[in-house]
Amino acid sequence: MVIIEGLSIGDELLDGRVVDSNAARIDHALRALGHRTGRRVVVPDDPAQIATAVAAAAARCELCVVTGGLGPTSDDVTAQAVAQAAGVPLLEDAHALEHLTTRLAGRPLTPARRKQAAIPQGAQALLNPVGTAPGFLVRIGGCQVLVLPGVPREVAGFLERDLARLVPPADQATTVRLRFALVGESALAAAVESHALEGVTVGYRAQGPETEISFRGPSDAVRAAAHLARAAFPDACLPDGLNLAQATLAAARAAGATLATAESCTGGLVGGALTAIPGSSDVVFGGIIAYSNTVKSAVLGVPSATLEAHGAVSEPVARAMAQGARQATTATAAVAITGIAGPGGGTADKPVGTVWFAWRGPDFDDTERHQLAGDRDQVRRYAVAHALDGLRRRMTRP
Amino acid sequence: MVIIEGLSIGDELLDGRVVDSNAARIDHALRALGHRTGRRVVVPDDPAQIATAVAAAAARCELCVVTGGLGPTSDDVTAQAVAQAAGVPLLEDAHALEHLTTRLAGRPLTPARRKQAAIPQGAQALLNPVGTAPGFLVRIGGCQVLVLPGVPREVAGFLERDLARLVPPADQATTVRLRFALVGESALAAAVESHALEGVTVGYRAQGPETEISFRGPSDAVRAAAHLARAAFPDACLPDGLNLAQATLAAARAAGATLATAESCTGGLVGGALTAIPGSSDVVFGGIIAYSNTVKSAVLGVPSATLEAHGAVSEPVARAMAQGARQATTATAAVAITGIAGPGGGTADKPVGTVWFAWRGPDFDDTERHQLAGDRDQVRRYAVAHALDGLRRRMTRP
Repeated sequence: MVIIEGLSIGDELLDGRVVDSNAARIDHALRALGHRTGRRVVVPDDPAQIATAVAAAAARCELCVVTGGLGPTSDDVTAQAVAQAAGVPLLEDAHALEHLTTRLAGRPLTPARRKQAAIPQGAQALLNPVGTAPGFLVRIGGCQVLVLPGVPREVAGFLERDLARLVPPADQATTVRLRFALVGESALAAAVESHALEGVTVGYRAQGPETEISFRGPSDAVRAAAHLARAAFPDACLPDGLNLAQATLAAARAAGATLATAESCTGGLVGGALTAIPGSSDVVFGGIIAYSNTVKSAVLGVPSATLEAHGAVSEPVARAMAQGARQATTATAAVAITGIAGPGGGTADKPVGTVWFAWRGPDFDDTERHQLAGDRDQVRRYAVAHALDGLRRRMTRP
Repeated sequence: MVIIEGLSIGDELLDGRVVDSNAARIDHALRALGHRTGRRVVVPDDPAQIATAVAAAAARCELCVVTGGLGPTSDDVTAQAVAQAAGVPLLEDAHALEHLTTRLAGRPLTPARRKQAAIPQGAQALLNPVGTAPGFLVRIGGCQVLVLPGVPREVAGFLERDLARLVPPADQATTVRLRFALVGESALAAAVESHALEGVTVGYRAQGPETEISFRGPSDAVRAAAHLARAAFPDACLPDGLNLAQATLAAARAAGATLATAESCTGGLVGGALTAIPGSSDVVFGGIIAYSNTVKSAVLGVPSATLEAHGAVSEPVARAMAQGARQATTATAAVAITGIAGPGGGTADKPVGTVWFAWRGPDFDDTERHQLAGDRDQVRRYAVAHALDGLRRRMTRP
């Protein structure tokens, strides 16, 4: 196993402004290759401290993954500090400059922007798959130092494209990953870890309403473990590593359905999740964000009498919203959501977190009431997941 | 200012399972007292590595805040390792044991649980305001080492109760933070850093289409620097530290306006951003997710002839969508977005990233075409920002 350290750079990581989410992102990607980060250091945007930390890490480990401080501003001093630790000058890299110019798409190549193309002499430039600043790989003594920008989506892009190529997997053990909708880590752990899983390392990663479980070890044992997890929650297991929105879209496409949404408390997030997927336009017709009762009545045709008699957060209103969305958009299936996301608006009968869902399609007309936990953001995110999962399950029914 | 380091302990912080949110929590609490964490180290649950890291930090700094590894399980070895670094034995603390027993509320005091009451000889026990394991404060050489459990809500409890008492506030330099919509780091840097800012530390934080710039130093110099930044982009500077969606909502509320959206390529994300804000229902009526041309025509009343003549991504369609959203929802103002988020669907005339916007209200009827860079996700996020910012500016016009 390679000895690995992480080095995170940025004032904002040390004054409470930013949680270092890149650290977990990198460590997780390394673990997927069978590696483990042995230690991490966080230092501010100070050239001397960065250079000292890089040199110290390079003396201790074989791979040092550095993030942050490669941008265009004066507090971005990482490239210069790494060059100092390596004992080489900074040189402008022709490929990096060309890539930068392309990315700027006509915006002026100011000196501040141009400096991003300068990397330590002898380093290999890694063109940024998402943004402007290149990453680079430079050898210092016996250590490969991989330097990436600090923007989380850029880090994710580099890891996906480059990591497996730059860091060989630790061994030939099999890894299987399964993704579950609306099943938590502890429920998965209870289902799996009561069995003997010889030589299998189990990992969990919760991403809000979705949980990924990974098994690594001998292939027979890994397959058996994956079977246990799938068998415990057969309907919640998403196919082919798809996320919930992707799985919903795939199920609708396979069923020949088209989709519409009617959203109150989620305010458009179900539509946003479905249309995040390239090529969703063959399935997703659209939807109505019916935040006010006026829109529920005027656009979705929910009778005012129903709103008055039952309140906006109620089963009959959810049902009428789903049917209204189907009719307004001509989609074959629709989901409706009406709930109380909080922090205000709760009552004894309908506390914060109360959400009514309705699903309407050619062969289903169902409603459910859920009591969701957490703050406004969490209630909304789980409501989106329940809405999608309800659609997905109804589209995949035999 | 006190020299401060952080030390985070736990295997789960180095294998991607857990994001170290305690770090930002602690750094933020210290910053509120005028202090700044100078460096942070993350090590696994290994007694030798922890002891080495504690001893090294104690030699460098005046306050070391340690979190993690104080629980009852076999991998909780922090107290023992800190005692080793201090060169003293572990001793059971009578107050900590009494508190622990009370907290267990009848559950058995097993040896594993009891070991939590053992702290280094000479240390001051800090009873846990939320959980069972006490924290403690121990002096090693010239350094106060504050050791807390790793459970985030327990850390929050300790910080709130103890930090101001244990760490005297520093003489505060002034900090001013400004937030800008759709102005990048390098543009801000160019506007500010061409001037002499004596003794002022400038920091940047980009969050997609929004950028925060911070100035720290003597109050006169900080105020002058903030004035420079504001004067360079007066319309883009968001008021009172609000984010763009909050600022848009506040501007609409102040103008007595109500809002609606008509979204094609953003699929509901503008609605999602506005309704993320608690209490948005007095301003946000709702919107139409018009992903398909059917919905554009049937719900928003865009004439089929307009769609055929100009295509869905065009000025007349955007204009008709905005007016249609206003009429359908009865809101006083609306924004419409129609564009090509990619990766497919681009043409020579309308490449990927082409987005038409329309804003319609009692005293405005405007359109803009923007060419947005990046992948699907980025085009959509910047389209949301342009849509909101266009609303905000029109609501704040004199």
